[in-house]
Amino acid sequence: MSNPLRVTVWNEYLHEKTDEKVRAAYPDGIHEAIASHLRAEGLEVRTATLEEPEHGLTEEALAWTDVLMWWGHKAHGQVSDEIVDRVHERVLDGMGLIVLHSGHLSKIFKKLMGTSCNLKWREAGERERIWVAEPGHPIAEGLEEYFEIPQTEMYGERFDIPAPDTLVFISWFEGGEVFRSGCCYQRGKGKVFYFRPGHETFPIYYQSEVLRVIANGVRWAAPIDGPIVRYHEHPDPLEPISSSGGST
Amino acid sequence: MSNPLRVTVWNEYLHEKTDEKVRAAYPDGIHEAIASHLRAEGLEVRTATLEEPEHGLTEEALAWTDVLMWWGHKAHGQVSDEIVDRVHERVLDGMGLIVLHSGHLSKIFKKLMGTSCNLKWREAGERERIWVAEPGHPIAEGLEEYFEIPQTEMYGERFDIPAPDTLVFISWFEGGEVFRSGCCYQRGKGKVFYFRPGHETFPIYYQSEVLRVIANGVRWAAPIDGPIVRYHEHPDPLEPISSSGGST
Amino acid sequence: MSNPLRVTVWNEYLHEKTDEKVRAAYPDGIHEAIASHLRAEGLEVRTATLEEPEHGLTEEALAWTDVLMWWGHKAHGQVSDEIVDRVHERVLDGMGLIVLHSGHLSKIFKKLMGTSCNLKWREAGERERIWVAEPGHPIAEGLEEYFEIPQTEMYGERFDIPAPDTLVFISWFEGGEVFRSGCCYQRGKGKVFYFRPGHETFPIYYQSEVLRVIANGVRWAAPIDGPIVRYHEHPDPLEPISSSGGST
Amino acid sequence: MSNPLRVTVWNEYLHEKTDEKVRAAYPDGIHEAIASHLRAEGLEVRTATLEEPEHGLTEEALAWTDVLMWWGHKAHGQVSDEIVDRVHERVLDGMGLIVLHSGHLSKIFKKLMGTSCNLKWREAGERERIWVAEPGHPIAEGLEEYFEIPQTEMYGERFDIPAPDTLVFISWFEGGEVFRSGCCYQRGKGKVFYFRPGHETFPIYYQSEVLRVIANGVRWAAPIDGPIVRYHEHPDPLEPISSSGGST
Repeated sequence: MSNPLRVTVWNEYLHEKTDEKVRAAYPDGIHEAIASHLRAEGLEVRTATLEEPEHGLTEEALAWTDVLMWWGHKAHGQVSDEIVDRVHERVLDGMGLIVLHSGHLSKIFKKLMGTSCNLKWREAGERERIWVAEPGHPIAEGLEEYFEIPQTEMYGERFDIPAPDTLVFISWFEGGEVFRSGCCYQRGKGKVFYFRPGHETFPIYYQSEVLRVIANGVRWAAPIDGPIVRYHEHPDPLEPISSSGGST
Repeated sequence: MSNPLRVTVWNEYLHEKTDEKVRAAYPDGIHEAIASHLRAEGLEVRTATLEEPEHGLTEEALAWTDVLMWWGHKAHGQVSDEIVDRVHERVLDGMGLIVLHSGHLSKIFKKLMGTSCNLKWREAGERERIWVAEPGHPIAEGLEEYFEIPQTEMYGERFDIPAPDTLVFISWFEGGEVFRSGCCYQRGKGKVFYFRPGHETFPIYYQSEVLRVIANGVRWAAPIDGPIVRYHEHPDPLEPISSSGGST
Repeated sequence: MSNPLRVTVWNEYLHEKTDEKVRAAYPDGIHEAIASHLRAEGLEVRTATLEEPEHGLTEEALAWTDVLMWWGHKAHGQVSDEIVDRVHERVLDGMGLIVLHSGHLSKIFKKLMGTSCNLKWREAGERERIWVAEPGHPIAEGLEEYFEIPQTEMYGERFDIPAPDTLVFISWFEGGEVFRSGCCYQRGKGKVFYFRPGHETFPIYYQSEVLRVIANGVRWAAPIDGPIVRYHEHPDPLEPISSSGGST
Repeated sequence: MSNPLRVTVWNEYLHEKTDEKVRAAYPDGIHEAIASHLRAEGLEVRTATLEEPEHGLTEEALAWTDVLMWWGHKAHGQVSDEIVDRVHERVLDGMGLIVLHSGHLSKIFKKLMGTSCNLKWREAGERERIWVAEPGHPIAEGLEEYFEIPQTEMYGERFDIPAPDTLVFISWFEGGEVFRSGCCYQRGKGKVFYFRPGHETFPIYYQSEVLRVIANGVRWAAPIDGPIVRYHEHPDPLEPISSSGGST
């Protein structure tokens, strides 16, 4: 892991260019709202967006990145499979990945999870209360027992994901649903954190608790300097083989 | 789940046609060795192979199947993506899947796991001792504390899979490696069981403990009649929303 | 496991004798309400209560039992440590255990969990909606996506338990909380299922979905005929030890 | 968490006083061998032993401690239940706990696990090879794919523990057994790490890989500043309750 930690915030960045209401909420894009907070936390931050060459996710950019953050919504299908494979390989090799809100249907998240990642949803601007289910987890650092999002889009169970390695948050919604809102996974050498809150018009990525969780998530997902694994044939055993053995 | 349980045993079925040694070990194919045992256990069993139309995995065949067993080795790339997607969807919808030995690199297993599924290997005909790590799990029914495979191909850690929901078996190899040999996963509504033992020439699929585990795995992976999940927009809340709310 | 499955329903059985409202709700005790349903499902059922000799949990009674159900509320401290140790040993040896509602603070549940098992609560007769988070799990068989309890006591997170091996249900409460309401654990060779719903006056143990889950839980928790584990010194290795070795 | 991290290394410290061979291996006690390494790593370290008043684990000592390390072997029964309860409470409140080798049968580990923690063992001075099963975990930092312990006491499966939240290491033994040697748990707000290697005469706590893992474990188990959880009655709901409700 680098010091300071290197983060790339990826955003689809389409809504903000075409929709007045989204631009009003995030004048420089959702990525800049998040990136500026992470910079203020002392991290080294770049951004990347869909319409840049290679979606801004060149080999060099990914090699530089310790933790990648992903926000997409309406253009998941426009992300090239080649870039998705490249990101996937980097995660398995140790890069952290934070997937936000509607990124649940991104190609990279679905590829890492192996499931449909479907859920229920409703845009009614209702209240959400996010409960900390695992108060000793690093991602819960600095929080109270719960925090509220005054107006949000509902995401409800069944959320079609593999059971998370650690379930950090569970959401309560005014309209009657619940949701596993903070889900940690180890995939290959990389750590993946799915965090539910967010929206393109509600000002959720300015809320202090949400930003706190995102920054905690980045630190938790940082790569570590673990063993290099050699996946291949090992014709020479480490111990003598006394069985009659014989080739095949 | 049907009664009796309906199983489809899928085999690549190439080795057996071209290699004298493999044909000697499995004259009717690996699928028939396994299928005949499962039939003797009272299950309803079909087989399917790579070179059949749609690899034998038509919509009808999969709709019929409660649990699919998968054996492939040298032709993973020849399995069409369309069929893989079809199997994937059926697993998420509840069909059980048992993946055997070199099926670890099959498209369907990698798609469900979301990782590379790589490992170390060696063909030296060494001894393997498979320890039961979870003696209360249904897949361990009828076993002793361990069983041995006199001659086997080694598969060694790091096995690049998501940590299993339940780790049932751990293998010891004469040459010095260990391996997570029995791994249970829930993916969507479907249960997935990876079981390591097997080989195209060693007579492993005639060994009683191996067959016992396979039959236990099939029963464990049987679909259940759970809720039908409606993944879509739910504009009408289940409870009144009192917040100022407002659409977006 | 026996056929039919043998269940002992244990109830503290104090409220029903002293409180008119509780007696009105459960004239023969909570244990009989549950037991009569399980008998109708074809299981062989006994009951046991606190004030019987050895709390009704003699060596013989436990040896007979495949799955024990536990309901206690105000007299957890009156259960003798010796009997708790006896039940604990039987669970580790394979007996299933279903813990209901306020049994979360029973000695046996706390001993098996290793944590305080504390939670938040409120008796306001509010509505609860129980969502199925794992629709492919046997305990969810026969359910819809959620079911409601019209009037209930709230239990809220943080619930101080080890993360369950499988989280089957998550509750939504009208008053704003959430709860992990269906939690599966393997402990030793025994399976443990904690199921939140229940109360001494609300008629929850007559509700069809609740009874369905309880019966599913019993079947899931049934013992299997797994290996007998020999925990002791094994001075003779299974393989030759070539190292200079030497005793210590 | 304090900065630097505060560690208390607890040792039974009986062998070293009475057995010449143990004293030869660890002249100042096992605790000092470990403590001096952790001091060299920049941590603030105290030690505590069985025969000190309150076993050295006073309220003050535990309040000071971020991470407690535990080594015991032949006198588990001499540790007072009161002190065990005190340590247990501190773990649930966030203190990290590292349990080494024969500490698997300590009262505190068994109380936190809820199982017997039994295993198989053999003292033949055989070789152990410890494989990294989770190369992206912080406890694997700085390691190769495996490391060997030239002469060790064997611990073999079935190890009667709850399945770990994360399984970091799996051991291979020359005599034919395997073992889950590095097991991570969250219990309450505290993190628990069981690490198998160690012995009172083999010089295992001088081996660099072992010391590296211990130091990694301490950093992983450090408390975080998470929410203070209020476990009690919450008579006032966070949201209005519209049901007829009514107390009970």
